[in-house]
Amino acid sequence: MNHVREMLRTHPQRGSNEIEALASCIEASMDCAQTCTSCADACLGERDVSGLVRCIRLNLDCADICAANARVLTRRTEANLEIIRAQLEACAAACRVCGEECAKHGAHMEHCSVCAESCEACLRACEGALTALAA
Amino acid sequence: MNHVREMLRTHPQRGSNEIEALASCIEASMDCAQTCTSCADACLGERDVSGLVRCIRLNLDCADICAANARVLTRRTEANLEIIRAQLEACAAACRVCGEECAKHGAHMEHCSVCAESCEACLRACEGALTALAA
Amino acid sequence: MNHVREMLRTHPQRGSNEIEALASCIEASMDCAQTCTSCADACLGERDVSGLVRCIRLNLDCADICAANARVLTRRTEANLEIIRAQLEACAAACRVCGEECAKHGAHMEHCSVCAESCEACLRACEGALTALAA
Amino acid sequence: MNHVREMLRTHPQRGSNEIEALASCIEASMDCAQTCTSCADACLGERDVSGLVRCIRLNLDCADICAANARVLTRRTEANLEIIRAQLEACAAACRVCGEECAKHGAHMEHCSVCAESCEACLRACEGALTALAA
Repeated sequence: MNHVREMLRTHPQRGSNEIEALASCIEASMDCAQTCTSCADACLGERDVSGLVRCIRLNLDCADICAANARVLTRRTEANLEIIRAQLEACAAACRVCGEECAKHGAHMEHCSVCAESCEACLRACEGALTALAA
Repeated sequence: MNHVREMLRTHPQRGSNEIEALASCIEASMDCAQTCTSCADACLGERDVSGLVRCIRLNLDCADICAANARVLTRRTEANLEIIRAQLEACAAACRVCGEECAKHGAHMEHCSVCAESCEACLRACEGALTALAA
Repeated sequence: MNHVREMLRTHPQRGSNEIEALASCIEASMDCAQTCTSCADACLGERDVSGLVRCIRLNLDCADICAANARVLTRRTEANLEIIRAQLEACAAACRVCGEECAKHGAHMEHCSVCAESCEACLRACEGALTALAA
Repeated sequence: MNHVREMLRTHPQRGSNEIEALASCIEASMDCAQTCTSCADACLGERDVSGLVRCIRLNLDCADICAANARVLTRRTEANLEIIRAQLEACAAACRVCGEECAKHGAHMEHCSVCAESCEACLRACEGALTALAA
């Protein structure tokens, strides 16, 4: 499906314990970035755009922060924990706020419901990565 | 695994024939962006970095272009074919050149071999999307 | 103001003739990426969002493509002309279509007028870079 | 030069006190993203790449985080302070660590010296924005 785990396995710096938590978080961040980009666009295509302005804005922020998160976590060479932790905190904040907003519209718009699910999964994956890195 | 198809299915603008080609190309672009980011980083972590400079540079370009490609293709509202086609051409060019470079190192470095595969799959997906959009 | 030219001057691969065209195009792409991100957001904050849906979508595409363009042009090590040209063509297409749409709203909304100007400047800079690279 | 202030001035949501701090931080983030992309590439073009691996990796992270930062701060519609603050903290961390690394190589490589300056300016701008938002 994707090559996240295969690339981590074949990286010269392999063997660390937190690989599974990192791989899950990279995948969740990529999915959330795409889902939020898609949800912003689907909201733009709805009849009542004006009621979805907050949702669109949070989607755009969340997509940008998740995309940066996937890249920073993908890099294993000379990793700096201070940067990675602060980046994961930012990603968790974006996913939490955006997911809560999407959940409000989920009953009426299926794309917001799917996006809320993706944001929640990414939030949990960020928390999982933070826990794994603290161990 | 990811929500690409679910988001396309729940988008207010659904039902077009090219959805399968778009979904495949979005997934291939996201995977190639991540794989190239990872390959650049894995190359940086190898002992003989200086022999991999061209590979790293092409990986970085390919990752940036694939990431833009996934976003542009994800958007379905008020799509502009001129932009989408030119973006797909740029992505195909990056994947072709980067994939050929990675293939040269594939016998010695497994991450380059995985990355070559991902670039080739993305090149084919871009060509498939261009064909579907021309129909 | 920015460090584009200082970085090009201090790069180990310096001295090429097209540096001025590249520097101008990097600056115009960065400005256009920011202006389009801002215009999409300003449009979202207007009362009549539904009349601006096409403008917002094109702004988002143009911002993503310009951002990739600035990065690809910034890299001077092992540059590949095929990728750079295709990327510049994609950026020119996005700037032309987005700038034309913004210009339609410029009389009523100043942010669209500023954005149209930034898109047009970036289109010209992409054409200038394409000419310089062909020389 | 750029249109950051003009776009903030013409945004429907104008008039806030923190605009100057935001504008400076957007400009510093854009400059730092470009400078770090350029420094990673210049380091790749140096003879002794292997001594610059840590610098390149931090440059790549810093470029991605600064790019996300410029986008999040650019958006003024329905701003969420929790996300903005966490994003600014991540950007400040990346600029601090990357700037310190670049400064170590500044005496021998001018591009690292310029980049260290850009990282430090962006760190200060992030701190200034955090202070302005807390007021």
